[in-house]
Amino acid sequence: MNFLEFAKKYDTPLYVYDFNHFEKQYNELKQAFKARKSIIAYAIKANSNLSVIKKFASLGSGADCVSIGEVKRALLAGVDKYKIIFSGVGKRDDEIKEALDKDILMLNVESEAELKRIDEIAKSMNKEARISIRVNPDIDPKTHPYISTGLSENKFGVDIESAKKMYIYAKKSKNLNPIGIHFHIGSQLTELNPIKEASEIVANLVRSLKAINIDIKFFDIGGGLGIKYKDEDTIKPYDYAQAILSTLSGLDVTIICEPGRFLVGNGGWFLTKVLYEKINGDKRFVIVDGAMNDLIRPSLYNAYHKVEVISSVKNPQISKANIVGPVCESGDFFAKDIEVPQTNPGDLIVIHSAGAYGFTMSSNYNTRPRPCEIAIEDGKDRVIRRRETFEDLIACEIDYLI
Amino acid sequence: MNFLEFAKKYDTPLYVYDFNHFEKQYNELKQAFKARKSIIAYAIKANSNLSVIKKFASLGSGADCVSIGEVKRALLAGVDKYKIIFSGVGKRDDEIKEALDKDILMLNVESEAELKRIDEIAKSMNKEARISIRVNPDIDPKTHPYISTGLSENKFGVDIESAKKMYIYAKKSKNLNPIGIHFHIGSQLTELNPIKEASEIVANLVRSLKAINIDIKFFDIGGGLGIKYKDEDTIKPYDYAQAILSTLSGLDVTIICEPGRFLVGNGGWFLTKVLYEKINGDKRFVIVDGAMNDLIRPSLYNAYHKVEVISSVKNPQISKANIVGPVCESGDFFAKDIEVPQTNPGDLIVIHSAGAYGFTMSSNYNTRPRPCEIAIEDGKDRVIRRRETFEDLIACEIDYLI
Repeated sequence: MNFLEFAKKYDTPLYVYDFNHFEKQYNELKQAFKARKSIIAYAIKANSNLSVIKKFASLGSGADCVSIGEVKRALLAGVDKYKIIFSGVGKRDDEIKEALDKDILMLNVESEAELKRIDEIAKSMNKEARISIRVNPDIDPKTHPYISTGLSENKFGVDIESAKKMYIYAKKSKNLNPIGIHFHIGSQLTELNPIKEASEIVANLVRSLKAINIDIKFFDIGGGLGIKYKDEDTIKPYDYAQAILSTLSGLDVTIICEPGRFLVGNGGWFLTKVLYEKINGDKRFVIVDGAMNDLIRPSLYNAYHKVEVISSVKNPQISKANIVGPVCESGDFFAKDIEVPQTNPGDLIVIHSAGAYGFTMSSNYNTRPRPCEIAIEDGKDRVIRRRETFEDLIACEIDYLI
Repeated sequence: MNFLEFAKKYDTPLYVYDFNHFEKQYNELKQAFKARKSIIAYAIKANSNLSVIKKFASLGSGADCVSIGEVKRALLAGVDKYKIIFSGVGKRDDEIKEALDKDILMLNVESEAELKRIDEIAKSMNKEARISIRVNPDIDPKTHPYISTGLSENKFGVDIESAKKMYIYAKKSKNLNPIGIHFHIGSQLTELNPIKEASEIVANLVRSLKAINIDIKFFDIGGGLGIKYKDEDTIKPYDYAQAILSTLSGLDVTIICEPGRFLVGNGGWFLTKVLYEKINGDKRFVIVDGAMNDLIRPSLYNAYHKVEVISSVKNPQISKANIVGPVCESGDFFAKDIEVPQTNPGDLIVIHSAGAYGFTMSSNYNTRPRPCEIAIEDGKDRVIRRRETFEDLIACEIDYLI
C-alpha cells in the first residue's frame, strides 16, 4: 500500500480499503463451510459504504442488516433479496412493513412482543413473514462488555424456553413462517469453545423443534469472528466451521454466517497527518488532523490500533508519546504512551485495522466534515465516498435559519 | 413543555430545545459580570445548530469555536466577527488562513509550534494575527477524565513559563499581536476553588507581562460551568463572577467567558418512543426508538441523564429496567437499573438535560438517520433541523457506486 501517495492524492484524514483483502477473507470463510450449503451474509454495520457492500455482493455474499436503512443499502448495492436478513432488538413498524414489502429472506425476531407485532403487521398486509428467532444461549463470549451479546443479562434474543414457545406460536399463525434460528454471542471473539457450546445448545433446540414438526431450514450462527489488532489469538475459519459443523449431525440446514469485522477489519487503514508536536510537563503529544469524530474506537472501547509513523526526520529520536486529535476533549486520542519517532508537521500516520467500525461510527462533532473513503483494487485506487464539505454539514439546517 | 404534542407532530427520535431557557441562562451569566466589560462567547461545540447560535447572537453573544467549520457557523448565524475566538490544539494551515481572512477577534494558541506557524502564515498573507495563548495552570478540575483539560498531563495549552516566552516572541513579531490570555480547566465543573486558583495564576502572569510592556486586553476564563444532571452541587454565576473578579484587581481587562453546557444543557430534551418491553433472565429491558448514535453520552462517559417515562398504562406496576436502543451493542443504553413504570409500545420517554453534547456528537451508525431538532420559543414550536433521510446518508457515496 502506497499510503504516502494516497495521502498526497486524496488528502487526510482518509480511509483506505483494500478490496482484494476483503475478497481473500470472504473466500477463506466461504471455503471453510464448503461441506454444507452456506450463505455468508456480510454484517453491514461494520462498514456500510455502498461500494464495499457491492464488492461482497459480487462475490455472492448476502447481508446481515440491523435497520431498514441497511436493508436499503444492501438492495441498492445489488445483494440478492433472498440473502438479506433483518436483525435488531428494536424494529419500528414502518421498518417491519418495508422489509416485508421488499420480500427479503427473513426477519430475525428478538422478543415475544416483536413476534406478535410482526404477526399483526403481516396479517394487515396479507403477507407471510419469514422469520428466525434469536436465541440467547447465556454463554460468556469473553470479549469487551459493550460488544458481548450472548449473556442473559444482555438485551439480545430470548432464552431457549421462550424461543420454543415462540416457534409454536409462529407455526400456528397463518402469517408467520419460522424458517430460521439464530444466535450471536458477541463481537471480536477469539475463543472457539463458547461458540461451539452455543451452537450445540441451539442445534439441540432445532432437533426438539423437528420432533414437533417445526422444520428449521436456516441455521444462523451470527458473526463475531475476531481479528488480530495486536497479538490476540484468533480463530481459524476452518476450525470455526468444523466446530459448528460438528454440532449439526443429522440436521439438513443451510448455514448462515454473518461476519463483519473479520471481512473488513484488517483491510482498512485510517490516514492522518501530523499538525504539531508539543510537550506538556513530562508528556509528549503528537497532534494529528484526524480525531475521535473520525474513529471513535480508542475513545469508546479503549481499543488498541497499531499506529505506524512515517517520519521524515533523518535518524529521528524515539520516545514515548500520545497520538491525539484536535477535538477539545482529553478523550480524543488514538494511542497513549507508545514509542514514536520524532516527526515533522505533515508527516503521515497510519492507523491500522480501521476497516471495521471506523467510518460507520464517525460523526460531525466539532463541525468536522467526515473523511473521504477510497478503495484499492487490483492496484488501482478510486474514491468510494467523497469528503464532506461545510455545505453538507448544514444542508438540513440552513433552510430553517430565519 | 408539551412533549406528547411535539412527539406526535414531529415524530421521534426528536431533540427539543427551549430557547427561552437559553436566554435566561445567558442573561444570568452576562448580568453576573456586569461590574466589568465582558463578552459571553457561546461554546458552539455544545450545540452547533445554526438557529441556536443565531439565538445567542441576537442576545449579543460571541462564539468560542474549535474548528473553521464552527467559525463559519458563527458568521453565518450572525455573530459579530470581533466576538469570535478560534481555539483548539490542532489547527490546520488552511484553517489558520481562513480565520485570518475572516478577521475574527483572535486565535487562541495552544503550542509554541502553532505560534510559529501562525506567525509564518500571517507574514505570507501580510497580516497581523491577533492571538491569545492558552495557559495550562496544572489544576485538577475534579471532573470526568475525558473532559478534564487543565492538568499538565493533558494535551491542552502551555505552562506558565512557556507562555511567557511565547508572549515575548509574539511581541517581537511584526505579524503577531498578543491581545489575550486564556485558560480552561475542564467541563462540567462543580467546584469553585480550582477555577479561582487557576484565575489567580493566570492573572499574575498578566501582571508580570504588563511589567515588560505586554498589555493583555482580553482575559478569557474559558467555560466549563457545570449544570445539574442529577443532584450535583453547581456554581452560581454570581459566585463564579465574584471569584474571577477578585483575582483581577488592578487589571483593566475585558473578561471573555465561554459557556456551552451551562447555556444549553438543561434547555434540551431527547424524545424517544417505546418499541417493546422484554425480559431476559432477571433483567427487564425497555427498548426505544432512539439509540447511542443519537445521544452517546451515557455510552461514552457513563453519563447520567434523568429519564422520564410517560406511561399510558393505568395504575402501572413499577420495577427496575434498562432503557436501551435498537443498536446492536450492549453499550447502547440510556439508563440502567432505574425504576420505571410498565409501558405500552408508543409510550413517550423523555431524556432530560440533552441540550449539550447531544446532537453535536450524533452519528449515522447502523445507517440511522439523525433526529429532527425543534425550537420552542414564546410558546411556539418550529423545526430548526429536519430529520435526515436515507438519501441524505448516501449522498456522498451514490455517485461512486459503479
